[in-house]
Parts: sequence; structure tokens; C-alpha cells
Amino acid sequence: MTEFIPPGTRYHALPSPFAFKRGGQLHGAHVAYETWGTLNADASNALLIVTGLSPDAHAAANDGNPAAGWWEGMLGPGKAIDTNRWFVVCVNSLGSCKGSTGPATINPATGELYRLNFPELSIEDGARAAVDVVKAQGITRLACVIGNSMGGMTALAVLLLHPGIARSHINISGSAQALPFSIAIRSLQREAIRLDPQWNGGQYTDQQYPESGMRMARKLGVITYRSALEWDGRFGRVRLDSDQADDDPFGLEFQVESYLEGHARRFVRFFDPNCYLYLSRSMDWFDLAEYADGDVMAGLASIKVDKALAIGANTDILFPVQQQQQIADGLRAGGADAQFIGLDSPQGHDAFLVDFERFGPAVRTFLDAL
Amino acid sequence: MTEFIPPGTRYHALPSPFAFKRGGQLHGAHVAYETWGTLNADASNALLIVTGLSPDAHAAANDGNPAAGWWEGMLGPGKAIDTNRWFVVCVNSLGSCKGSTGPATINPATGELYRLNFPELSIEDGARAAVDVVKAQGITRLACVIGNSMGGMTALAVLLLHPGIARSHINISGSAQALPFSIAIRSLQREAIRLDPQWNGGQYTDQQYPESGMRMARKLGVITYRSALEWDGRFGRVRLDSDQADDDPFGLEFQVESYLEGHARRFVRFFDPNCYLYLSRSMDWFDLAEYADGDVMAGLASIKVDKALAIGANTDILFPVQQQQQIADGLRAGGADAQFIGLDSPQGHDAFLVDFERFGPAVRTFLDAL
Repeated sequence: MTEFIPPGTRYHALPSPFAFKRGGQLHGAHVAYETWGTLNADASNALLIVTGLSPDAHAAANDGNPAAGWWEGMLGPGKAIDTNRWFVVCVNSLGSCKGSTGPATINPATGELYRLNFPELSIEDGARAAVDVVKAQGITRLACVIGNSMGGMTALAVLLLHPGIARSHINISGSAQALPFSIAIRSLQREAIRLDPQWNGGQYTDQQYPESGMRMARKLGVITYRSALEWDGRFGRVRLDSDQADDDPFGLEFQVESYLEGHARRFVRFFDPNCYLYLSRSMDWFDLAEYADGDVMAGLASIKVDKALAIGANTDILFPVQQQQQIADGLRAGGADAQFIGLDSPQGHDAFLVDFERFGPAVRTFLDAL
Repeated sequence: MTEFIPPGTRYHALPSPFAFKRGGQLHGAHVAYETWGTLNADASNALLIVTGLSPDAHAAANDGNPAAGWWEGMLGPGKAIDTNRWFVVCVNSLGSCKGSTGPATINPATGELYRLNFPELSIEDGARAAVDVVKAQGITRLACVIGNSMGGMTALAVLLLHPGIARSHINISGSAQALPFSIAIRSLQREAIRLDPQWNGGQYTDQQYPESGMRMARKLGVITYRSALEWDGRFGRVRLDSDQADDDPFGLEFQVESYLEGHARRFVRFFDPNCYLYLSRSMDWFDLAEYADGDVMAGLASIKVDKALAIGANTDILFPVQQQQQIADGLRAGGADAQFIGLDSPQGHDAFLVDFERFGPAVRTFLDAL
């Protein structure tokens, strides 16, 4: 599985044992991370980035790895997250296959991959692991914790479970609890993988691999990560050239189908299916209301942070902007100077990965004022 | 496949051969239909209903079959489509498995099911077949042609290919061309069926049946037929009782997952997979712009009808209301007295099947004024 991990990745050993929220524990586990910029003398310029389901810790080029990262447009010297000023830590989620310990890691107790013997993973476990990385850097208080998508959930868990860990928070296309439309989508993605006979109860190999299930899961992901509006303009009803089109009467015909196919091909063998199942399910389980007698607003209000920004794209169907509005309202009820911005990005949930023109200034303005 | 067909269904023999738009032809084909009400002496009170992908012709209870139909709340004596006044014909789509000739019908030339030897089906073929049923009833001019969802496409094809066939038109949650988001969803549904090894190139049997593929396709359908808003209120994060929940660690846990599972179970064995593929693909192909040098508005404007109503639900993500707005605008440009109404139904694309409180008055008001 080492082909999943970008060069230059650094590793932080978690306390051993590392206990999970829902029970079970890991021994000898670690978390992959990368850094940018320089920590100042009083360690007051540190930012933590926690990510969506699939990204690794390589958010942008750095000394360890000059290749562009998944947030290259946002992070670097002079960029919205200005590494001339900030020392930035990005953590690969616990349970991922991009360097952190997860279902695709060898269980030291057995010498075999964990697979489905990995403990039930919650967003909160990833949050605790990320904070452990931060503390090991000599940072006791972050200037800001920034979370995107699933990372928006992780960031809220960081703040809730570690009061005082951050002065501020930027929540990008995140949510304080999973709602049924997104649960339904993720449940169907997991079902596609589990129904693939080659998934084989998690005991697949490189030769017998749940290719079809992963392809379906990824295509459904991409469909819900973008927006109909963007696709109308981008693909319309344009058909593939005859040499690209499939001979199969039910094969690819429209450009949008080829786009999905391309995305699926670039994903299927580059993300571990069991890790996908664990991370996906952890999102369904996440609910700040659990910490406040079923009241999600009270859960948010129990988080203490000085300043917060919750932003998202108005076209997002997976983490709709009402959920970012709720985060801002809830944190404000808890005493934060909290702002919500719904951006007119056409790119849906994934807009934060591509629409730097809109997301960049919002993030820059917030960080500049810290 | 006779278990798919409601009792009391009537059959109309199509001209033989019946040629298809994209080539190929059927011999000895027929279309299933039902009627309500009484045709008046000058045959001026006739309405045609063309349906979405999966419904049969049994839209409501009638003499032949007292069981409630799929549009029971809308159609009947004193209802929005008042059968005391109107003579209503509802046609099961050509290519369906609910009584009309389709891929699950025996090909008289071979004595075997057509399966993938069925000719490539277009929306326009279904439209021509429906008009043939209408004419056989002694109707030369309909008071109104009403189409829902896919039937909204069929109705537009009826009007385009048979100028003068109807005085008016009600388009409900339909569209004048398939756009990439809906193409992507349908493409993925078809892929789920085709990737199921038991689909077997269309040669499945009752024993070796593409159960998983059909289940995935249906769940994805249901997700896109409804709306996030409705599900937030209806399911929230409510979990299944422990006796309903699955023991499987990745099995059903939330009510929304059980709801999808129930829908899938009621569909998988009650709709033929090959018919599903053909009808689904016909929607992707549909594009009124083909008839007007790539200009969909001009295609609509070439349709001659006196009055039209295009309605839909503001929460519809599959056939968004912008598409019904476009239909009204285009028909108006062609000289029709055309109105668009976007209804605040929370139920998404399927709202017309359940939200009679909103859809009923809109349809009734239009028909009463004819």
C-alpha cells in the first residue's frame, strides 16, 4: 500500500495504546503529517489543517516534496494561507491509507493487515490523533484549526474535545452532524463496495480487488461533490468523439460519462476500499448533538473559540450551506465572533478545492485579521 | 414477466412493422393502456397521460381494476383530473415491462425474449406508440396531453411529431432535453446493473438475476427522486431499533437506510433490468434541440399548442424547475398561452406522486379553464 503515500511524508507515533471512542485500541499506531513555514519562538503562529475523506497530508509543495499538493492554490508563501507568516501542519486522517495507521496497515499483534479488525473509527478518534501531532510540535495553542468537508467535522471535534486548543476556527464545507441525504449517499457508496464479490468481506488482494464497487462509489462521490449547474456549462450534451466512445451499446457516449470514468480510474486503485468504508461510516456517525442531549446548536455553543468563519458553496448538495450557517450560528451562541459566508461557486461541495478566487479571499481576510 | 402487469390492462396492437427512430422495427408489437371516464360524442374531452420510467398504465382505480393506481390522488371522479368530465387514456411506455412490448417480451421472429436485440428505443418511439393508441380510440384531437417526468419528454415528442394532436399540454417535472447531472445519475444506475455479473450481458434468468445491480440502481433513483430537505424532517438522524438493525458492522443503522432498502426490495424483482436500461438510455438521448439546429428553445417554439402549463417542485434535483421554466418559455415563444409554476413541495422530483395538495390545484385550475 506504500504507493498511496506521497514522498516526504513525516510520521508521528501516537501514544500506545491509543484508545478509540467506541472501544478498541491501537498499539504502535502513527499519523502521517507534513508542515510548511516556521514555528515562531512562542509557538503562536501555528495552524492545523484537517482534511476530507481522501486527501493525504501533502496539501502543497514543501521542502520534503516539491510536487503540487491538493490545496496548492490556497497554501504557500503569499497565498491565502500564507506560509511566510504561518507554521502549518496538515494531518492525514487516522484510518486513511495515505500514511496514517488504518485498516490497510499491518496489525503488529498479528502481522496481518487490520482490514475489518481495525477498531470502529469515529471522527473524534481522528481529532485526538491530530491534536497529538500538534502537541508534539511544541504547540499548546493553535492560532486556527481549519477543516474541509469531513475535516470540518474533525475540526469541530478537535475544538470540543480539547478546549482552548485553538484561538480560532475556519470550517469549510463542513457540518456539525451528518444528515440523511448525505448518509444515504455514503451508505450507497459503501454498499457498492460491499456488494462487489471481490470485496470478499474485506479480504481482497491486488489481484482480486473490488474494482467495480470502488468505481461505483467514486462516481457517485464525484456526482455529489460537484453541481448540476457547473456540469450544464462544462459538459452540456456534448458527446464523445467516435474514437473515444465505447462500442458497447450501453457504454460511454456523453462527455460527462467519460469525466466520471476518468475520475473513477484515478481513484479505484489509489484508495484502500476498507479505509474508505471506515472513514465514510465515521462521517455518518458524527453528531455534535450527542454532546448536548440531542441539541446540535447546544453542542456547537459548548465549543469555546474566539473567532470563527464557516464558509461553503451555495451549490453544495452534500454539505449544504445551511450546515455552515448552523455552525456559525452555534459557535456565535457559544460566544465566538463567528461569521458565515455562502459563496456563489458553481462547483458544489468540491468548490474549496478549485475555486480559489472565491475561497481564497474569504480565508485570507479571516487569517489576516488574527 | 406477467407478474409485472396489473389486471384489467388493455392492449392496443401497433402497426406492424413499427419502425424505430434510430433504426430497427417491431413486428406484432402492442402497447398496454387503461382508460377512465366516457368519450363524448365529438371526442373532444380526451386527455392522454404518458408516464415516468417505471409506472404501469394503472394510474387510478377503474372498472377493470378497482385497486388504487399510482396517481390515485389526482385522477378520478371529482379529482383534479376529473373523470366525470374527461375521458382519460394512460399508456404504458413502449419498451416497458408492464404490458407494452419491450426487451422482456418474446420476439415473435425467434420465440425468445428480445433482451438486447430489442431495437434502440427513443422517447420519440414511445410518443408515436402512444398517439397510435389515442387514434384507435377515435380521437383525432386531444384536449390535453399530460406527461410526468420521462412522460414530460414523451409528451413534448407527441406534440412535436404530431402537430395539432392536442389543444393543450401539461408538463409535470419534465424537461426538453437531458442535462449532464441527470445523465450522470442514469449512467451510473445503468452501470450498476451492467456491472452486476448476474446481468450477464442481458441473459439473466429468475434464478441468476442482477439483484445487486438493480438494488443499487433503485436506491440511487430514490435518493435523486426525493430531496434532502424532506429527509431532514422525515428521518433526521433517527436510528433503527436494535431488532431492525443489521448485525453486519457496515449494515443498516439509520432509518433513511432502511427506507432505501425497502424501496429497493419493492422494485428489484418488479421491473425488468433490460427494460430499465432501454428506458433510462432513451431519456439521456432526448433533446428537442435536435429538431432545431441545436437550439432547444427553438425546438420548443416549433411546437404548436394553444395552452400549456409546466410545473415542478423547487426541490427537484433530477429535473430541476429551470427545465420546466424553459418549457413554458419555449412554448410561449411558439405562440402558446404558457405558464410556469414552481411549487414549494419538499418531496423533490417525486412530489407530483405525493403532494396532491400543491399539484392538484395547479392541474385542476388549468383543466377547468379548457
